[in-house]
Amino acid sequence: MTSPRSNKPKIVNGPGGYVLQDVPHLIDYLPDLPTYPNPLQDNPAYSVVKQYFVDADDSVPEKVVVHKDGPRGVHFRRAGPRQKVYFESDEVHACIVTCGGLCPGLNTVIREIVSSLSYMYGVKKILGIDGGYRGFYAKNTVPLNSKVVNDIHKRGGTILGTSRGGHDTTKIVDSIQDRGINQVYIIGGDGTQRGASVLFEEIRRRGLKVAVVGIPKTIDNDIPVIDKSFGFDTAVEEAQRAINAAHVEAESNENGIGFVKLMGRYSGFIAMYATLASRDVDCCLIPESPFYLEGEGGLFEFIEKRLKESGHMVIVLAEGAGQDLMSKSMESTLKDASGNKLLKDVGLWLSQSIKDHFNKNKMVMNLKYIDPTYMIRAVPSNASDNVYCTLLAQSAVHGAMAGYTGYTSGLVNGRQTYIPYYRITEKQNNVVITDRMWARLLSSTNQPSFLGPKDVSEEKKEMPLPETPLLDNGAGNIPPVTKEVTK
Amino acid sequence: MTSPRSNKPKIVNGPGGYVLQDVPHLIDYLPDLPTYPNPLQDNPAYSVVKQYFVDADDSVPEKVVVHKDGPRGVHFRRAGPRQKVYFESDEVHACIVTCGGLCPGLNTVIREIVSSLSYMYGVKKILGIDGGYRGFYAKNTVPLNSKVVNDIHKRGGTILGTSRGGHDTTKIVDSIQDRGINQVYIIGGDGTQRGASVLFEEIRRRGLKVAVVGIPKTIDNDIPVIDKSFGFDTAVEEAQRAINAAHVEAESNENGIGFVKLMGRYSGFIAMYATLASRDVDCCLIPESPFYLEGEGGLFEFIEKRLKESGHMVIVLAEGAGQDLMSKSMESTLKDASGNKLLKDVGLWLSQSIKDHFNKNKMVMNLKYIDPTYMIRAVPSNASDNVYCTLLAQSAVHGAMAGYTGYTSGLVNGRQTYIPYYRITEKQNNVVITDRMWARLLSSTNQPSFLGPKDVSEEKKEMPLPETPLLDNGAGNIPPVTKEVTK
Amino acid sequence: MTSPRSNKPKIVNGPGGYVLQDVPHLIDYLPDLPTYPNPLQDNPAYSVVKQYFVDADDSVPEKVVVHKDGPRGVHFRRAGPRQKVYFESDEVHACIVTCGGLCPGLNTVIREIVSSLSYMYGVKKILGIDGGYRGFYAKNTVPLNSKVVNDIHKRGGTILGTSRGGHDTTKIVDSIQDRGINQVYIIGGDGTQRGASVLFEEIRRRGLKVAVVGIPKTIDNDIPVIDKSFGFDTAVEEAQRAINAAHVEAESNENGIGFVKLMGRYSGFIAMYATLASRDVDCCLIPESPFYLEGEGGLFEFIEKRLKESGHMVIVLAEGAGQDLMSKSMESTLKDASGNKLLKDVGLWLSQSIKDHFNKNKMVMNLKYIDPTYMIRAVPSNASDNVYCTLLAQSAVHGAMAGYTGYTSGLVNGRQTYIPYYRITEKQNNVVITDRMWARLLSSTNQPSFLGPKDVSEEKKEMPLPETPLLDNGAGNIPPVTKEVTK
Amino acid sequence: MTSPRSNKPKIVNGPGGYVLQDVPHLIDYLPDLPTYPNPLQDNPAYSVVKQYFVDADDSVPEKVVVHKDGPRGVHFRRAGPRQKVYFESDEVHACIVTCGGLCPGLNTVIREIVSSLSYMYGVKKILGIDGGYRGFYAKNTVPLNSKVVNDIHKRGGTILGTSRGGHDTTKIVDSIQDRGINQVYIIGGDGTQRGASVLFEEIRRRGLKVAVVGIPKTIDNDIPVIDKSFGFDTAVEEAQRAINAAHVEAESNENGIGFVKLMGRYSGFIAMYATLASRDVDCCLIPESPFYLEGEGGLFEFIEKRLKESGHMVIVLAEGAGQDLMSKSMESTLKDASGNKLLKDVGLWLSQSIKDHFNKNKMVMNLKYIDPTYMIRAVPSNASDNVYCTLLAQSAVHGAMAGYTGYTSGLVNGRQTYIPYYRITEKQNNVVITDRMWARLLSSTNQPSFLGPKDVSEEKKEMPLPETPLLDNGAGNIPPVTKEVTK
Repeated sequence: MTSPRSNKPKIVNGPGGYVLQDVPHLIDYLPDLPTYPNPLQDNPAYSVVKQYFVDADDSVPEKVVVHKDGPRGVHFRRAGPRQKVYFESDEVHACIVTCGGLCPGLNTVIREIVSSLSYMYGVKKILGIDGGYRGFYAKNTVPLNSKVVNDIHKRGGTILGTSRGGHDTTKIVDSIQDRGINQVYIIGGDGTQRGASVLFEEIRRRGLKVAVVGIPKTIDNDIPVIDKSFGFDTAVEEAQRAINAAHVEAESNENGIGFVKLMGRYSGFIAMYATLASRDVDCCLIPESPFYLEGEGGLFEFIEKRLKESGHMVIVLAEGAGQDLMSKSMESTLKDASGNKLLKDVGLWLSQSIKDHFNKNKMVMNLKYIDPTYMIRAVPSNASDNVYCTLLAQSAVHGAMAGYTGYTSGLVNGRQTYIPYYRITEKQNNVVITDRMWARLLSSTNQPSFLGPKDVSEEKKEMPLPETPLLDNGAGNIPPVTKEVTK
Repeated sequence: MTSPRSNKPKIVNGPGGYVLQDVPHLIDYLPDLPTYPNPLQDNPAYSVVKQYFVDADDSVPEKVVVHKDGPRGVHFRRAGPRQKVYFESDEVHACIVTCGGLCPGLNTVIREIVSSLSYMYGVKKILGIDGGYRGFYAKNTVPLNSKVVNDIHKRGGTILGTSRGGHDTTKIVDSIQDRGINQVYIIGGDGTQRGASVLFEEIRRRGLKVAVVGIPKTIDNDIPVIDKSFGFDTAVEEAQRAINAAHVEAESNENGIGFVKLMGRYSGFIAMYATLASRDVDCCLIPESPFYLEGEGGLFEFIEKRLKESGHMVIVLAEGAGQDLMSKSMESTLKDASGNKLLKDVGLWLSQSIKDHFNKNKMVMNLKYIDPTYMIRAVPSNASDNVYCTLLAQSAVHGAMAGYTGYTSGLVNGRQTYIPYYRITEKQNNVVITDRMWARLLSSTNQPSFLGPKDVSEEKKEMPLPETPLLDNGAGNIPPVTKEVTK
Repeated sequence: MTSPRSNKPKIVNGPGGYVLQDVPHLIDYLPDLPTYPNPLQDNPAYSVVKQYFVDADDSVPEKVVVHKDGPRGVHFRRAGPRQKVYFESDEVHACIVTCGGLCPGLNTVIREIVSSLSYMYGVKKILGIDGGYRGFYAKNTVPLNSKVVNDIHKRGGTILGTSRGGHDTTKIVDSIQDRGINQVYIIGGDGTQRGASVLFEEIRRRGLKVAVVGIPKTIDNDIPVIDKSFGFDTAVEEAQRAINAAHVEAESNENGIGFVKLMGRYSGFIAMYATLASRDVDCCLIPESPFYLEGEGGLFEFIEKRLKESGHMVIVLAEGAGQDLMSKSMESTLKDASGNKLLKDVGLWLSQSIKDHFNKNKMVMNLKYIDPTYMIRAVPSNASDNVYCTLLAQSAVHGAMAGYTGYTSGLVNGRQTYIPYYRITEKQNNVVITDRMWARLLSSTNQPSFLGPKDVSEEKKEMPLPETPLLDNGAGNIPPVTKEVTK
Repeated sequence: MTSPRSNKPKIVNGPGGYVLQDVPHLIDYLPDLPTYPNPLQDNPAYSVVKQYFVDADDSVPEKVVVHKDGPRGVHFRRAGPRQKVYFESDEVHACIVTCGGLCPGLNTVIREIVSSLSYMYGVKKILGIDGGYRGFYAKNTVPLNSKVVNDIHKRGGTILGTSRGGHDTTKIVDSIQDRGINQVYIIGGDGTQRGASVLFEEIRRRGLKVAVVGIPKTIDNDIPVIDKSFGFDTAVEEAQRAINAAHVEAESNENGIGFVKLMGRYSGFIAMYATLASRDVDCCLIPESPFYLEGEGGLFEFIEKRLKESGHMVIVLAEGAGQDLMSKSMESTLKDASGNKLLKDVGLWLSQSIKDHFNKNKMVMNLKYIDPTYMIRAVPSNASDNVYCTLLAQSAVHGAMAGYTGYTSGLVNGRQTYIPYYRITEKQNNVVITDRMWARLLSSTNQPSFLGPKDVSEEKKEMPLPETPLLDNGAGNIPPVTKEVTK
């Protein structure tokens, strides 16, 4: 067990190779905090629930595919209400901030943090921070209550506004201290969670009784450990519209190509799942799977082949795919400033490259380019994401009330858990192209792997600990915890 | 009355200033054709309809806003079944071709032409021409019957395939003659209808018993005379998704601008109606309404003003708007070939120009660009368009069976009519910016008119015969028929 | 011309058989009212519109299918802004009330009345009457302004609430007088419009300067004269979902019957258009077309036949169809009170009767019953209805400002008009089963007409003035104006 | 380990309390079957996947919330491709049958079984059994291949047709034997799976080399062990439409009640999740939670209270809720046969009872009743369910090819597994009303629990093994395996 005031990971070991990667608690550095009975004990809705409170020892394994005599592996603390809380209802002064790009479900998460605080814990003081991190020091705040948030889950976007960047640790913690805020809910992607981690360290350094809670948001699903991020389901669903349209355009034109660019700067999950759900896609290009255009086994060859076979095709491209190809191509051909900017969009660049190739070879081809990015990001969350956001928000609130801090709320193998920041921010979640899910995709599209055996072995060296956590992915191996963490 | 074999317009005059702009008939140049009783007389579905057949004298006025003692004006022949037909069921050999870009409803029109021919008139031989005009001589054909087309109205696109160009009069008429086709249904935009007109002239010249029938297709609604084109309703509906998304993105970001490019190369109807239907748009830019970027009264000034007032805004741009500005701008700044190509997209160019302007002036601004064009074109038609397409197709078939030819089927003041080609192709339908509908839009968006009084008077000179036929447009004056036509 | 203070119809005659059925005006009984220039003259949005104001002589014909030398027929006054208005902006105190069942578009109409009054005419005092007619005297009112109504068009229902009945002429006019209201906008069906007519008479009797304006609302489209009612398009669109589901259920089960009940107490427009738009329906039953169950040519026989042919079928029933059959059946078989109540739903009764018939005859059959009524009524209006509602509301406001009163705003042959109440309330709009539109339906479903020749001739006697005004209906005859009206 | 030919459960024990509930294998009773290398080894899509084949020892725990030193618990065999298969491609003759009610995703499962067999394993002979179990002996079969099933996932329903009952073990196994079928895929609910279990026993008894594979289908999500059933997500999504409509109707009418009946004969999962996703529901009634109408703490009292507070409310009722109340009520009031039948619908009965109560007490109330059941069942599966169905189908096929039989494919804690029939059919999955998920619902609706402390303790006695497997449910205890099973 690590020293309570250190910022080293808290690790608990058990028999059979059991490891618990625990999260910080306010009493780690404020050991004398008083506790109070959880007000849920008197809530009529919960009075019939006998085992409502989570057992202090409950944990959830990171790895569920096991062998009869394999080690039990890494576990996370289970989320949920505790019998004792570390805040009185009147004492709580919470704030909520949303950072980064839009994602379906933001408003539901906001709504349910507010609802959980008000209805479950009787909290009155909740503040919305306007426009992301910089809202802490540069903008007005918005008082939140259950009436204000009542209908917001039916709208896309975030009622709090959002922005990128603006993280100024000192200014933000000053603002938190000045306003007397003692629970900070931070909804955002990996950069934002790294920021939350830094805020938490500064707050611990200052010895403040302030719980810092992250709620992971990434439409790309590129946050590790968790099963999937909220809004992902909705995004994959909405992407079907674009793929359907691309398919119709392709089928109706001679040598028609429907070309859809989807989100995914570093990871191709949306593209992969949208392709798997649609069954109309002939080629799915993602950042994790390198490809090349010209020559044998290249993309152009495959397009020509598929057009010859079926007269049309649908290509789905994650925005992060082919960036290296684009950079190389643009260096050589384009110097002009304003053109450059536009061409940095890989979707526009690749679709133009395909057109150029066919023009050069005097082949008829009709490419229709669809970029539904902002239409997908802005839709309200679907029913499944609404339920997910609700549970995520409730878990986040239960944890803060119970005195936990410096954690991210997250679903692991279908259970709500509290995950230490370092596990969320240490690396990105990526599609593992030597994994069964990607093989499923390849067999569904019948596209080439664009890989020789050499690529595969290199690939494996670079990414030794692959994992794709949505549904069953066939990954036999779950990454062992790295040395620095376990010791 | 014109000579039967001439290709001059057929004009019939009546009392009180009544003018009928009639359509050609096979007996104009084949005066001895036999007639047959309409097989609908024995159709059980029609047996109870006493006045089912259209009276030979029925006509529909082009102009419905009238004065007590004004002239009765131009009329068109009313569409519908006639008591006598000029084809026997077994004799008919029909073909259908779709040309130009996709539009919701194409498959419904195809389906209903096939259904009308089969169920109403007992026709057995119907051919689908594959891939537009060039399909007549360069491609295989597809046999059509009611089973083949049964479910196609639920899919977007066209099962026949489509293409632009490929019109070769001699080859096409040769192919028609060789195959023994005697009814040609041509679904396409103004260029396609011009092509149909030429085919009709060649067929008349050769003295063939072949009815040539146009069904006007234009998602932009830029075909004159008719109330609206099929698919337009669906397109405006589908455009709401993009505008809603743009609105959400705009509201959630600091100085957010949601920027939506919609269809409309020469006419801004989709942009205008989508704006009127949405009520979330702050600025609608269409080809008919010139604007400028810099300086007082310019677009940049308006954007700055609106962002200052409300913190966000939504801009809708028809693809044909601002083309002159773009050409000028690109001449001066861009020489490179491949960049050039991309930049020819006015949506990308204008959104980049706005970004550049704000960057240059160091103002924060978040622009999100949405181009839903191919997502809109590819959806299946909605219920309203389905009914419309059905009536359009039935009217087209009734006319051909009754021996009319060289006409376009079209809805005029809510009634199906037969319109001579010259009225469809003589000019384009445009939004009249000195008309009440555009004023409604301006008052709904509160955008500046970008016009001085000088522009208005010039505008009026250039477009002397304005008309916006969807719903009530407040246009006091309907264009008088021009001299060349009436004589 | 009628005497100004009389409540006789105002009729204007012109050459060539031209008849204008005019609407009342405040100066009919308050001849000395002052006028003011229309504030739109100074509105920047309208400054470029040269012929913005409607010519005082503009009228719109009720009948557009004409003959070369036929009479010009009945006309209505064209709606739109006039150069002179009879209210100063500060003087106006408007109120809006919604009555009867829900209909898509109610909130859009409310929004646009408020917007038109505020933005176009600078009106500040607008009151929402809560919960229908009885809200005038029994409930609180809601102050309305453009901010309150800003987003309401995206929601179904009516923000004002609604109710049936509650019409108490004296109390309502007292309330109008007490509150100083001088423009009353009444949104509701034929009963509501009759009520508006009575209010207008009482207001005229009291000599009040109060404009009474009706906006016709009926999801069933059963209001005569007008092209279609708002919300109808949306309702037909939404009904497709139910029909699609019924089709899927029918196809997946042995002898599957998908049975959909749609709205339409006295007129089957929704059922007819939903059937025409869907193409999946085998049998459409509407109040206007009598049918019977047992025996040769009856419904049961047809169902058996269709199931034998294709193994499944879809039936669409308008709620008013078969009422007589149900009454007769229930008299004989059911006395119990609570059962009775349920069984008064003709959909439940008829689907049960079909089940009983098949059970009795030991035939396998799987009937799935869908009643989407309240799911259809509650959706927000689609884009097409949004534009329509906007124009309707603007027309209503222009008329009241111009001093017209005692009228209903309505679209006639694609143009906004003012229609005297008696034309709206004198009869209901019905599907004419001897008309071409119904024949189209019969030929699309291939269902029997359930009519012998005898029925047809009787039918014709009972309904001498048939008209189906949506799109082209093929009705050769438009009803002559009745004697009482024209004199 | 059990004897290979016995039909006792196959149980494997390991250290730390590890228990594997294994599934049967063909070699249990046909020990000398030859094996072949898995053809996937040569599939280009899989060539890059190094650890593609599932390790023979992989298992997945049923219970994931664990304690540091708790027993490891029950596990299931992990699904996925094996290195050795027990069928040659040419040898396989597969058949697919769908039984019971419709559920979104049926066609996707069919499509993906066919695709997996053809593309992955090169199988050519696949038969669709028409219309459920009875199709084996009473109907024609449908040959299936990847072309036939290409687009079926975009349609609702099942292309194979379905029916209830018809299970005749001897006839079915005779038919299987006669046709030479050796892989049987059976898609259906718990009754169907029980049938599959019986077929498997008979096939084992006859010593046939036939793999019997179940794919659990239940829109109600009432099958135990698995995380959730396919189509459930889609159903909850689609239910939102009905709840939204009910909410609009309720808000727009005085004392409006929107009343929605949803599926759920024995378990209220759809009602619960639809309520949690919507946030607009005031009262959710499910079979697992008894309630009463009259008196203190009853439903009527709650409705009156809620209407007084907010003027409207939304009630969601699972079809199995309140059945006992209805039976009692109907005994006393209704004897008539045909009325009886209708009233057996608890939604109609309860909504009528509410109306009667308010009428009797002369209170104004407007109840709108919506039953979207068949509209929900018939929609195509959403993207999330499409991916789920794909993985389920692939797992099912991998298992059969690997020689496993007598199992159901199912998702357990996010991983595909093979589950022995007895675990699927031994009991139903129910909402546990003493569990945290139901408490969440109660706190979201603020409805009374309708339970006294006495009920709770009784409740607990009757349902000793509760579990709600979707997402985190807070159930601290996972049911121990019962004695009969483990020994």
